[in-house]
Amino acid sequence: MLLYLLGMLGTAVFAMTGVLAIRRQGVDVFGALVLGVVTALGGGTVRDLILDVPIFWLLDFNYVWVAGGAALVTFFLARPLHRNRQLLLYLDGFGAALFGVLAAGKVLALGHGPAVAVMLGVWTSIGGGIARDVLASRTNLLMSPEIYATPILLGCSVFVLLHGVLAPVPLGIACVLLTFGLRTAAIYWHWHMPRHLSTHRKTHSGDDSAH
Amino acid sequence: MLLYLLGMLGTAVFAMTGVLAIRRQGVDVFGALVLGVVTALGGGTVRDLILDVPIFWLLDFNYVWVAGGAALVTFFLARPLHRNRQLLLYLDGFGAALFGVLAAGKVLALGHGPAVAVMLGVWTSIGGGIARDVLASRTNLLMSPEIYATPILLGCSVFVLLHGVLAPVPLGIACVLLTFGLRTAAIYWHWHMPRHLSTHRKTHSGDDSAH
Amino acid sequence: MLLYLLGMLGTAVFAMTGVLAIRRQGVDVFGALVLGVVTALGGGTVRDLILDVPIFWLLDFNYVWVAGGAALVTFFLARPLHRNRQLLLYLDGFGAALFGVLAAGKVLALGHGPAVAVMLGVWTSIGGGIARDVLASRTNLLMSPEIYATPILLGCSVFVLLHGVLAPVPLGIACVLLTFGLRTAAIYWHWHMPRHLSTHRKTHSGDDSAH
Repeated sequence: MLLYLLGMLGTAVFAMTGVLAIRRQGVDVFGALVLGVVTALGGGTVRDLILDVPIFWLLDFNYVWVAGGAALVTFFLARPLHRNRQLLLYLDGFGAALFGVLAAGKVLALGHGPAVAVMLGVWTSIGGGIARDVLASRTNLLMSPEIYATPILLGCSVFVLLHGVLAPVPLGIACVLLTFGLRTAAIYWHWHMPRHLSTHRKTHSGDDSAH
Repeated sequence: MLLYLLGMLGTAVFAMTGVLAIRRQGVDVFGALVLGVVTALGGGTVRDLILDVPIFWLLDFNYVWVAGGAALVTFFLARPLHRNRQLLLYLDGFGAALFGVLAAGKVLALGHGPAVAVMLGVWTSIGGGIARDVLASRTNLLMSPEIYATPILLGCSVFVLLHGVLAPVPLGIACVLLTFGLRTAAIYWHWHMPRHLSTHRKTHSGDDSAH
Repeated sequence: MLLYLLGMLGTAVFAMTGVLAIRRQGVDVFGALVLGVVTALGGGTVRDLILDVPIFWLLDFNYVWVAGGAALVTFFLARPLHRNRQLLLYLDGFGAALFGVLAAGKVLALGHGPAVAVMLGVWTSIGGGIARDVLASRTNLLMSPEIYATPILLGCSVFVLLHGVLAPVPLGIACVLLTFGLRTAAIYWHWHMPRHLSTHRKTHSGDDSAH
């Protein structure tokens, strides 16, 4: 139950940061609605297509209502929300951590191997934001010098490796906190990839990114 | 039967406007073929993937022949067709209206709820054009100030709300005409979203857009 | 067995050219990994989704290991590999030829018609590179004046037309060689589409493209 509510919170936060990220580029209310929903639900949709299981938001349409509602609210209340952008950035990091670990657990529960679980866990977490950036002609996180996906990759890997060794609930909580902690540190101290792991010539300050 | 022919007409028109839209950017005959087919069939393909039903053009390959043929004809006869661009814009509006309502009916017939039907109806109508614009690095309609999707959203919503209340065929016709009428008005009078529903700084004249 | 090894070689080469293609644009090791894997596996993934069969790399995860490993090696050894770029370009042409014909054969074996086989054969071959270019904001091959897809279209068409007439293995080899030969000639002599089949104003020299 708490997990369900946290999942809905993550969905709402993803939709909100999605709309904030594209709002300055010129978009109308319909475009904001679609892009917010894509940010929140896009990654999990592709994951379910690949796994050949029913799309999660077809089974429980509340995901779409929450994502759409959050996107609309954000479109109309963008100014006060923009002032709390830093808070949303951290909430987004929490949502990303949660989505990744939950998805990795779902994939393991379907009987797939650990590598598939890590791969689709990370994808669930980052896929929606990438799809939004492609639709909005923005630089997506794959081409950005910011540290966004690496903490998720680490958190999902630890979860999958210790799955079956430790009890799933405390392990999941620990991995979400690990991911969230690393992401928080990356936001706070403006961490970037070390130079030999990146071909970016200059590293920009990280404050332009929503996720 | 008439519905089938109208569906094929819509497919052909989508492929034609698709090729006209990207022709000036530099494309060869193969690229035009692919982008025309993507414009015409892309939205419905994603809809069928999400619904987990066989892709419509795998069941009836005539859709691909019609889309591909229309794309090739348009590539080679682009100059005379370009002169009738305005006509194609209206035909495209008709195709979009038809695709949306037909798709909403298909989703309802599969036993899904009204919100899913509206969502996938609109997507079927606009998804192909969005995919083409992403592939051709053009600004897609989500980021454009033009009024394209809103009439489809209205028409599909009315169709779904009154479904089961009114007989489906006259209701469908009425909703297609409603959608088409609104889109026609938006083209003719260069309607744009009111300013509080849009973050576009300037509204461009709508004549650069195919769909 | 040989076919399997060749398929893995093609996968590795696609991942390598994928990373080389985007390396100069600024990407970190995670982005390179994702884009290399997308280049190598993206086309076949969409093909399997459309055909509603299990995704090939879920059935045999070695494809992901090979693609990911090749992407990482390429990221760290980019300089020596860059010197052998011309060789990789030819290897990429071979991989594209092989992927197209193998995919066409797979589609025919599933009982689909010849047109579906050609369509999805070509898509398997070019889809991954197109997805990578969309993710990396590069001009994809649909909008490029280079001759890349036409040889694959020809090779897959000949394969499908003569399937059932000639023995599949020698026919497949002949079609791969036909495709590869045409592509090699297009690279070597900088062939471009004749002007009446293209709307590109200027034809660029072909040496900037990986695939």
